Amino acid sequence: MPVGTAGTVKGIRFEELESAELDPKIILGNTYHLWLRPGIDTIRECGGLHKFIGWDRALLTDSGGFQVWSLGALRKISEEGTHFRSHIDGSSQFLSPEISMEVQAALGSDIVMTFDECAPGDASFEDTAKSMALTTRWAERSRVRFDGLQTAAADTGRTGATDHLSGAQALFGIVQGATHLSLRRESLEQIATIGFDGYALGGLSVGEEKSVMFEVINEIAPLLPSDRPRYLMGVGTPEDLVNAVAFGKLNIKNAQWSKDSGPIDPRCGCSVCRRHSRAYLRHLYLSGEMLASILITHHNLAFFLDTMRSVRQSIRSGDFPKFRREFTERLNANGE
Amino acid sequence: MPVGTAGTVKGIRFEELESAELDPKIILGNTYHLWLRPGIDTIRECGGLHKFIGWDRALLTDSGGFQVWSLGALRKISEEGTHFRSHIDGSSQFLSPEISMEVQAALGSDIVMTFDECAPGDASFEDTAKSMALTTRWAERSRVRFDGLQTAAADTGRTGATDHLSGAQALFGIVQGATHLSLRRESLEQIATIGFDGYALGGLSVGEEKSVMFEVINEIAPLLPSDRPRYLMGVGTPEDLVNAVAFGKLNIKNAQWSKDSGPIDPRCGCSVCRRHSRAYLRHLYLSGEMLASILITHHNLAFFLDTMRSVRQSIRSGDFPKFRREFTERLNANGE
Repeated sequence: MPVGTAGTVKGIRFEELESAELDPKIILGNTYHLWLRPGIDTIRECGGLHKFIGWDRALLTDSGGFQVWSLGALRKISEEGTHFRSHIDGSSQFLSPEISMEVQAALGSDIVMTFDECAPGDASFEDTAKSMALTTRWAERSRVRFDGLQTAAADTGRTGATDHLSGAQALFGIVQGATHLSLRRESLEQIATIGFDGYALGGLSVGEEKSVMFEVINEIAPLLPSDRPRYLMGVGTPEDLVNAVAFGKLNIKNAQWSKDSGPIDPRCGCSVCRRHSRAYLRHLYLSGEMLASILITHHNLAFFLDTMRSVRQSIRSGDFPKFRREFTERLNANGE
Repeated sequence: MPVGTAGTVKGIRFEELESAELDPKIILGNTYHLWLRPGIDTIRECGGLHKFIGWDRALLTDSGGFQVWSLGALRKISEEGTHFRSHIDGSSQFLSPEISMEVQAALGSDIVMTFDECAPGDASFEDTAKSMALTTRWAERSRVRFDGLQTAAADTGRTGATDHLSGAQALFGIVQGATHLSLRRESLEQIATIGFDGYALGGLSVGEEKSVMFEVINEIAPLLPSDRPRYLMGVGTPEDLVNAVAFGKLNIKNAQWSKDSGPIDPRCGCSVCRRHSRAYLRHLYLSGEMLASILITHHNLAFFLDTMRSVRQSIRSGDFPKFRREFTERLNANGE
C-alpha cells in the first residue's frame, strides 16, 4: 500500500501508479495532514478525497492518532482526545475519536481507521496498560460515531462512480499493547468484542527492537479474526523499504557509480532499470534534478509491489518458506 | 523543442514525453552544463548523450557560447575563446570553438551548434559589429574542427541504434547582430558563405524590446537559405511559455482556486486537465509536493506542443492568419 500522505504518492503520477508495472489496488492518505491542509471544507466541497485527488481505486485513511502522537511535546492527551499544535502554523488543534470519524467521513475513504493511542516501543507495563485501555474506550467511541455517520450517509462519494460510498465505508479496529504480549491479547479481545470490518496491529515499528516486533507479530497475528482483512500498520513504509530492502547498500551518490552503465538492480525488469543507468541517476541526483526522485521512487515501488506479488504467489503455491529463504539470502549478498 | 539542460526535461519521464499526448521529435541539451557536470569523460564512457540519458530521438546541443556569455562578470572573452568560472564550483574553465565541437562530438548530438558570441540586446552598433565579426571567425573555426571530427568519425553513437552517428552529425550556423538590421544582414551573408546544414537566429530574447525582436525576425528570417532548417534560438523557452502563454494570468497559488474543481484550462484535453482540479494543484503546490511541478510541466508542454502542431497544420491548410488572430484574441481574453 503506497503512502499518499498529503493526497499524492510522492513523485509518481496516478497514471503511472495504475500501469501494469506498479498496479497497487489501494493507497493510504493521512487524516491529520489533509485535515490541516488543505482542510476538510475544501475536500468536502471538491466531492471527497477520491474526487479531489483524482484517484478511483481504494483509499485507506489513518485516523490521525499516530501522527498526533508523533508530535511528542507538541501534544497533550486527555480522556476526551488530544490537544496539539499544528506542525504547519503552530495553531492549537483538537482531535478526538468523534472528530476523526467525521473527518474521515468527509474524506470518503473506503477504509476508516479508529482513533487510537500509541504507546512507545519501550513503554512500561503500567503505562502501556493505561494507554491500551484508553485505546479501547476510543475504539468504542469511534464505532458509535462512525455508525451514526454511516446511518446518516454523511460521508462523501467517489470519483465519477454511480455507487456512492455514502453509508458504505468500512471501519478497522486497532490492537495496541506495545511489546507486552498479555496486554496485546487483552487489547485484541476487547477490540474484537466491539467488532470491526477488519483488524490492524498498531504500535509496531515505533522504536522497539526488530526481534521484539517480530515476536509480537508471531504471537498475535494468528489470534486475529481469520475471516476479516488484517493490516500491519507502519511496517513497510517506503522509508523502511528504501533503507532496509530496495537499495540494500546501494547509495546512488557514491562516486563508484559515476561511469556505471548498469541498472540500479540487474535483476529488476522495471522501466527505470530497463532504460537508465546508475551513472545517469547519480548525475541527476547530484544536479538536484527532480527526475532523480521520480525514477528512484518508481524503481522502489516496482520492487516493493513485485516482491509482495511474489510473496502472495508463493503462499498460494505453498513455496513461501523457499521464497523467503532465497529472498533473504539475496538481500544479505547485496549487503556485503 | 523541450529544454533538457542537464540531460533531463525537468519533471517529466521520457516515456511520458514520448506518449502521443506530448510526442516532441527533438529535445535540447546544454554543452556547458553537461561539460561541467557530469563531465565529458563520463558521457563518453557511457556511450554518448543518447545512451547516457536513455533518449533515442533527436538531440540538439547548444554550443555553450550563450551560457558562458550569461555568466557576465564571471567570464572574459578573447579572440581564442572564453575564460570563465564554473557556476558549480568556481573553478577556472576555458571554452573555444574547437573545444565546443569536441565536446559536442563526445555528446553525439544530432544537431551541433557553432560556438558564437552574443551581444546584449542594447549593444551599440560598434560593440555589436565587433562581436558579430568574432562570431563569424568562430563559426569558421567551428566548421573546420567539426569537419575534422566528422572525417575521423570521432563522435559517439546513439542508444542501441545500428546506424551510428559517427560522421553524421549536422552543424548549424548562427546569425548574430543584435538589433542592428544592417549587421544582421552582414552576419547572415558571412555565415551562409561558410555554409551549414541549418541556420539559426541567435541573440534574440536577450533584453531587447519584444517589438524590436519581432522586427528583426520579420526582416531577417525571410533571408535565411530557404532549403535548410531554421532555428529561432531562445524564443519559446518554458519560462517564456509559462509567463507569456500557457498560464496567462492563472497563478496556481491564488486563494481563489482553493476550492475550484475545474481544470487548469477548460479548453485543454491533456491528461492533467482531464483528471486534476485547480484546487488539487494548488494544494500540491502549497504542500511543497513534487507532483505540483510534474503536473504543471506536463500541462505546459502539452499546451506548447499542441499549439505548435496547430500552427503547422494551419500553415499547410492556408489558415495561419485566421489561427493567429483567434489565438491572440483568446490569450488576451484570458489575460483580462
